[in-house]
Amino acid sequence: MSELEEGTPGGSAAGFRIESDALGDVPVPAEAYWGAHTARALENFRVSGVPVGAHPHLVRALAQVKHAAALANGEIGVLEPHKVRAVAAACRAVAEGRHHDQFRVDVIQGGAGTSTNMNANEVIANLALEHLGHERGRYEHLDPLDDVNRCQSTNDTYPTALRIATSAALTGLTAELTLLSAEFAAKGEEFATVVKVGRTQLQDAVPMTLGREFAAFGVTLAEDVQRIGETLPLLAETSLGATAIGTGIAAEPGYAAAAVRHLRALTGLDLTPAADLVEATSDTGVFLLVSGVLKRTAVKLSKVCSDLRLLASGPHAGLAEISLPALQAGSSVMPGKVNPVIPEMVNQIAFATAGADVAITMAADNGQLQLNAFEPLIGHLLLQHIGWLTLGCEALRTRCVAGITANREHLARTGAGTVGAVTALAPRIGHETAADVSREAARTGADVVDVVVRRGLLDRETALRLMAVTAVG
Amino acid sequence: MSELEEGTPGGSAAGFRIESDALGDVPVPAEAYWGAHTARALENFRVSGVPVGAHPHLVRALAQVKHAAALANGEIGVLEPHKVRAVAAACRAVAEGRHHDQFRVDVIQGGAGTSTNMNANEVIANLALEHLGHERGRYEHLDPLDDVNRCQSTNDTYPTALRIATSAALTGLTAELTLLSAEFAAKGEEFATVVKVGRTQLQDAVPMTLGREFAAFGVTLAEDVQRIGETLPLLAETSLGATAIGTGIAAEPGYAAAAVRHLRALTGLDLTPAADLVEATSDTGVFLLVSGVLKRTAVKLSKVCSDLRLLASGPHAGLAEISLPALQAGSSVMPGKVNPVIPEMVNQIAFATAGADVAITMAADNGQLQLNAFEPLIGHLLLQHIGWLTLGCEALRTRCVAGITANREHLARTGAGTVGAVTALAPRIGHETAADVSREAARTGADVVDVVVRRGLLDRETALRLMAVTAVG
Amino acid sequence: MSELEEGTPGGSAAGFRIESDALGDVPVPAEAYWGAHTARALENFRVSGVPVGAHPHLVRALAQVKHAAALANGEIGVLEPHKVRAVAAACRAVAEGRHHDQFRVDVIQGGAGTSTNMNANEVIANLALEHLGHERGRYEHLDPLDDVNRCQSTNDTYPTALRIATSAALTGLTAELTLLSAEFAAKGEEFATVVKVGRTQLQDAVPMTLGREFAAFGVTLAEDVQRIGETLPLLAETSLGATAIGTGIAAEPGYAAAAVRHLRALTGLDLTPAADLVEATSDTGVFLLVSGVLKRTAVKLSKVCSDLRLLASGPHAGLAEISLPALQAGSSVMPGKVNPVIPEMVNQIAFATAGADVAITMAADNGQLQLNAFEPLIGHLLLQHIGWLTLGCEALRTRCVAGITANREHLARTGAGTVGAVTALAPRIGHETAADVSREAARTGADVVDVVVRRGLLDRETALRLMAVTAVG
Amino acid sequence: MSELEEGTPGGSAAGFRIESDALGDVPVPAEAYWGAHTARALENFRVSGVPVGAHPHLVRALAQVKHAAALANGEIGVLEPHKVRAVAAACRAVAEGRHHDQFRVDVIQGGAGTSTNMNANEVIANLALEHLGHERGRYEHLDPLDDVNRCQSTNDTYPTALRIATSAALTGLTAELTLLSAEFAAKGEEFATVVKVGRTQLQDAVPMTLGREFAAFGVTLAEDVQRIGETLPLLAETSLGATAIGTGIAAEPGYAAAAVRHLRALTGLDLTPAADLVEATSDTGVFLLVSGVLKRTAVKLSKVCSDLRLLASGPHAGLAEISLPALQAGSSVMPGKVNPVIPEMVNQIAFATAGADVAITMAADNGQLQLNAFEPLIGHLLLQHIGWLTLGCEALRTRCVAGITANREHLARTGAGTVGAVTALAPRIGHETAADVSREAARTGADVVDVVVRRGLLDRETALRLMAVTAVG
Repeated sequence: MSELEEGTPGGSAAGFRIESDALGDVPVPAEAYWGAHTARALENFRVSGVPVGAHPHLVRALAQVKHAAALANGEIGVLEPHKVRAVAAACRAVAEGRHHDQFRVDVIQGGAGTSTNMNANEVIANLALEHLGHERGRYEHLDPLDDVNRCQSTNDTYPTALRIATSAALTGLTAELTLLSAEFAAKGEEFATVVKVGRTQLQDAVPMTLGREFAAFGVTLAEDVQRIGETLPLLAETSLGATAIGTGIAAEPGYAAAAVRHLRALTGLDLTPAADLVEATSDTGVFLLVSGVLKRTAVKLSKVCSDLRLLASGPHAGLAEISLPALQAGSSVMPGKVNPVIPEMVNQIAFATAGADVAITMAADNGQLQLNAFEPLIGHLLLQHIGWLTLGCEALRTRCVAGITANREHLARTGAGTVGAVTALAPRIGHETAADVSREAARTGADVVDVVVRRGLLDRETALRLMAVTAVG
Repeated sequence: MSELEEGTPGGSAAGFRIESDALGDVPVPAEAYWGAHTARALENFRVSGVPVGAHPHLVRALAQVKHAAALANGEIGVLEPHKVRAVAAACRAVAEGRHHDQFRVDVIQGGAGTSTNMNANEVIANLALEHLGHERGRYEHLDPLDDVNRCQSTNDTYPTALRIATSAALTGLTAELTLLSAEFAAKGEEFATVVKVGRTQLQDAVPMTLGREFAAFGVTLAEDVQRIGETLPLLAETSLGATAIGTGIAAEPGYAAAAVRHLRALTGLDLTPAADLVEATSDTGVFLLVSGVLKRTAVKLSKVCSDLRLLASGPHAGLAEISLPALQAGSSVMPGKVNPVIPEMVNQIAFATAGADVAITMAADNGQLQLNAFEPLIGHLLLQHIGWLTLGCEALRTRCVAGITANREHLARTGAGTVGAVTALAPRIGHETAADVSREAARTGADVVDVVVRRGLLDRETALRLMAVTAVG
Repeated sequence: MSELEEGTPGGSAAGFRIESDALGDVPVPAEAYWGAHTARALENFRVSGVPVGAHPHLVRALAQVKHAAALANGEIGVLEPHKVRAVAAACRAVAEGRHHDQFRVDVIQGGAGTSTNMNANEVIANLALEHLGHERGRYEHLDPLDDVNRCQSTNDTYPTALRIATSAALTGLTAELTLLSAEFAAKGEEFATVVKVGRTQLQDAVPMTLGREFAAFGVTLAEDVQRIGETLPLLAETSLGATAIGTGIAAEPGYAAAAVRHLRALTGLDLTPAADLVEATSDTGVFLLVSGVLKRTAVKLSKVCSDLRLLASGPHAGLAEISLPALQAGSSVMPGKVNPVIPEMVNQIAFATAGADVAITMAADNGQLQLNAFEPLIGHLLLQHIGWLTLGCEALRTRCVAGITANREHLARTGAGTVGAVTALAPRIGHETAADVSREAARTGADVVDVVVRRGLLDRETALRLMAVTAVG
Repeated sequence: MSELEEGTPGGSAAGFRIESDALGDVPVPAEAYWGAHTARALENFRVSGVPVGAHPHLVRALAQVKHAAALANGEIGVLEPHKVRAVAAACRAVAEGRHHDQFRVDVIQGGAGTSTNMNANEVIANLALEHLGHERGRYEHLDPLDDVNRCQSTNDTYPTALRIATSAALTGLTAELTLLSAEFAAKGEEFATVVKVGRTQLQDAVPMTLGREFAAFGVTLAEDVQRIGETLPLLAETSLGATAIGTGIAAEPGYAAAAVRHLRALTGLDLTPAADLVEATSDTGVFLLVSGVLKRTAVKLSKVCSDLRLLASGPHAGLAEISLPALQAGSSVMPGKVNPVIPEMVNQIAFATAGADVAITMAADNGQLQLNAFEPLIGHLLLQHIGWLTLGCEALRTRCVAGITANREHLARTGAGTVGAVTALAPRIGHETAADVSREAARTGADVVDVVVRRGLLDRETALRLMAVTAVG
């Protein structure tokens, strides 16, 4: 039996209140702050089981947008002061996280976010009604559409909230990325004197230090902190005032500028109005860009984690250059086995992020005419995967990188190899000759310098000096 | 504070029991059926918040696998009869869905499924202990590893459970796809006489009926019921007995055959042992195949939904050939607007499925040597998206297709167009001449037959007869 | 200056003949077999520089389709016998590969394949005209549209040709896959006695042989030969007779059945008419399916190649289990370095195939109403990547796998490791105890059996017997 | 027979010269400027048939890098002045495009670009030898490795060249994007007064002008000119001097700074040395970023083209708001049909670009340790798709957008619809009442204003004033 059917249709039975919309009466649980539209959306959208409230950044941003709109409407005189105060109070309560459970519409929804916007309008209206001393559902005193949504459309408020939410989520990600990068840098210093063989195409190449390898992990992630940061100004563009399609229909004069100003104050973000509101209403380019940058970060993390797993392979029949901390028994059948579970977890987060980018791409590509109906999927996937990456970075730092140790003895044994040695000599004895020396040394087990001296190519002193090129570069 | 830290380490405080594993003592909530390994996994994997128990098909399959293993171990004499009975009872209880809340490990986990397998081993062991009259955690009487996991490894039980779960989930999907296909077929009959313009490249082409269009939607989805069905025999391959890498180490003689036989009986599936267990242990090809077929189904659904939205565009300035049922108010700013929310929801499900396919592809591609460590992601995404598609099909059928009506008057007005008419005549008057007739008719508004007769190309009777080619084809 | 402008418009200048179409006169190089439509398409589509003729399977299939259509039209009496003979001769010449250079339209083309179909119609018409003793362009004697394209539309002939071409290309791929699989199987036998450590999650696991590892490579690819083979019957569905949208408009009675019959004879394929021609005309599901299976094959090849690169890593500081044949100097700076260039090449082919699958997915998803306008991209990508994979398999077999040698001495030194040993004992001494033995052995360097015996867990004989479990499994 | 076998091995037969490398003698066609390494690469890599020379931006960049290196080596005194002059002359000739046919190695190659680098080294060496009056192949006078590649590795020169080439290609793309954007802007002005119904979710929404719609197309593409431009400084980072793995082994002191300085002068780009050369050597992040931005541009173009096709649908049974120029006959069976072939072509380019992004993602993700072996695929796909998008933009502008006309009469007839009218009134009469008015008007066919006035909701004057909100916004 469906949720709506559970009520007593047409009556004011205990436990339910009756609301109505364009399609008729709708029973709503008496204790719910949400109303008729949300009730229908709960019936219509039952796919993921993940409610909009699972994205707290989005709920907060919706509240901030509604708050700013109310203040703007008050300022231009189209919303009475007592309503402004009540709506503002409601929005503050929501933004503080006290009503996330009321944002129940499934994240996989049709309607371009209308149901999320209406969920917000209804929750805020009913909270405001309570604030004014009225019962929930008595919209004649304060209406979700005519008051809370005044001068607004889903099509300008929802994308604006999504941008603010994404921005906040990314800020959390860059904080964790920065810490992770610093942890790698610290390991880089710790391992600064540990010499090892650098590898290209998985083949032994020339000497380097484990320190430089770890430092490079830190550097490459720090670059992504910058790249992510560069998307924030683009996310700060807002189409508030655009209403349905960007022409501002049903928005009052003066509203847009006031709303943006108030939203700037409420969020602390340097929000700017989009130059072309029609373009801004249909365009999802900024989300594509963020998704692309996010995928880049994910791929970098994945590459780093794959490297950690390679370097930790063994313990006997692998590279065995480092040891990762043991976090749990590694096998249900092989006693004593320990596995690189955290890097493996992060690899999977990365693959999921890359997959989400394709879903976002298709959603963006399928936008039609004046609106992209698929922003709910875009928003859900972005917020989900920013969150996953953030948690992944934290786990990688605290449960893996911080505890990595170098297998110094093993590394001291493996040395730098023949290829590395002759590479340093090649500029003087020529590439072809060096290759021949390399082959002889490999075949006979002789020392490269001995071969070079015996062949009269270089004196021993010069050869040793050239090879003293440190692994540090 | 972390979950483990919440306990009283080292003591038997009320509310917690102390278990231990290779890494030391672990406090476990007294009421939990899971144990030490699960406790560590809950600490280590905290990304998605989605527990393994959110995939009931997988939990049931794990229970069936453990059940079959216990029966086989009893049969070959390596598990005492009372233990077999206790484990069997526990597995039945889990399979019946009474303990899904105990499967708490995050779906995004490292370790190639070890933690999911251990979660199952522990829950089943503790249920069995209770059945035997012992307290939870008293593994000296019945051990998660030595008894429940006997002759097994994560690396053969987990993929086998994943295959069974996927198979069950797909069966649910094909049931809904079949119903949806039938609904389209019924609409095809309902609209059998409604003539309309067929379109190629969005341009008016030649006449057809709305009935054939809807019938084709039904046919195209019915084909996918077949395609999905063809993957089931491949999913029915099992590597039980392979243990760690396919060599069967730690599995007793006779175990593998007995286990497969019992699992066949328990699941009702025609399970077959994989021909090469080493290959089967590292290969994720079947999941790639299923994901590819699933994506095909998703894309077909998406194409159908995009068509429905196109055909329902309007009501005034669109194609307006059909009307979708109104499910909720369509706009927060535009009164009276109704939107195609269910098709839009299904489009988004499809995009997400296509994205998941890329994530699965990367996970499969990154498998290394004797095992793919990324099966947890593969399994989660497959089960999630099979579930989403199933719910999407149901919603599309019940909340959209069943209520579609044809805008017969509008269609009667728009007719079949000039192109359609001359196409029927072209074989007799030649393509170039027909094109010229078409242009004259379009330019002057004259009737195509009049032009043809006036030019002496055909007599009126012949022209009319040729054009009587029905739209039904 | 554009190609068309190079001619002398309006005149019959040496070097050009003047043809015309619905849009006016078009100069065509005198020696060209293609005509006006192709000329316009060459102007319009100038993106990839890859002509349709670069896909010989497609050109041959187009010729076969036109050939079958001519025979059918002759049989039902709508094409005069001398025209049938001339068209048939032309089609045979094209099918034999003598005029691929005339198929010049860019593979990236709008129009759903119309230009490719017209290119074929024109080339065949002009070849047939020559056969009849007429000059090129004298279409009054035999017309590309009214004769060669009789009873046809791009929308049934082009997809049919694409299916036949894909089928032929896949047959070539499975032949190479089979050879590659056999080569791996042979290596499996060659390395049957070479014991090594199997690895899960890149960590040392339990013993196996290099032979089983290579045999598994062979098995996993052989499975894909089967999977690809299972798509062939689906590709053999044809929509011939559907014409524009599946209603068969402009096709004569009897044509469809006759055309399919003749095409079956010409191709040797067991072609079957699609059950619902309207569905068949708009559906691209079969290409999605093939692309998914192809991606699976690609991913398997990629996984195998990544494994080969891992196993060949070193020579000193890597796994160094096998050596790949040296094909070229590996570095411009490191003398003597040899790289796994062929596996790397195949990895890249696989990534490109996976990318193409996404492009094909988007193309399929964007199909609208009665036709998918994006089949040219789908066809190009499928044929390109089937070809690349075929060449990749051949190169991998002949230039890499066939020359792989086992580093037997190195493998003999590395042995099977502690984890492998205790895994065999765990069923008797218990998992936890075994883990403890493993840790002691690893810490102290003691032999596992010594520890077990000293602790009184097993007598030496039993321990050794249990550990004698061979690596072969 | 293979290319190498065609020669006369071991002899100096007419038509071939014999070169040698570490693996032995190699016959090279006498007229070839490339040498032994290229000859082997031509044997090894035979997949795509597309030579490196098909990417002229890359060939030019390689020449510029080699030129800068020679000047730097001359400056620091490790390359004799006559060699510097000869190499510089050779590089200039290559950069001018006179030897692109000598860059023959297949773009799908293993070895991380080594073969491309060696192809460049050999061609430049032989051109320089000619310049010095020597025969090709007489490397004792000037050596491809010891002289042309002096102080370099593939691993710093190839990525640097790829970055320069990508940068140059992107500059070409932004030039075309800018022109296309301007064309849309011009159309926006042309259609500034054409009122139409704006649509959200394909449903009639509120009024706008066709001018604003086209202007928005221009704006959205102009934004991508900016986004692409923002990637250029990141592409300008160079790792010259890093050599094999970033430690600078085999590079002489002073070389790196001098080489970057000379390369800056030769390219006119504001090149900067990477801060961490080890990181820079293995990182492919910049290519991921560019690919992500490119995909964004592609998706935007695709969305615009899909919109154009929708707006041009018809002519009778579609939206029919605009007409695209007729470029070729649209159908082989439907006389007089005209199709949106250019937008369809651009859609396909976009899908291919999105697919390439996935391939690039996988290539980047699979990089291991100190080098990404898959840069050749990354480079090829980026350059290919930047090129395709550039040509697509040009075709879209010149062959489609420039010729678009508005169907003003049709648009005048369809008007703005009921929803649009009541939206303007809703802020005064309330959303629910407005929805009810909308339904009555739709049901009865009455005028919205009449209903409002009759119900006493507003006086006629106010209603008309509110509705006078222009479509321009």
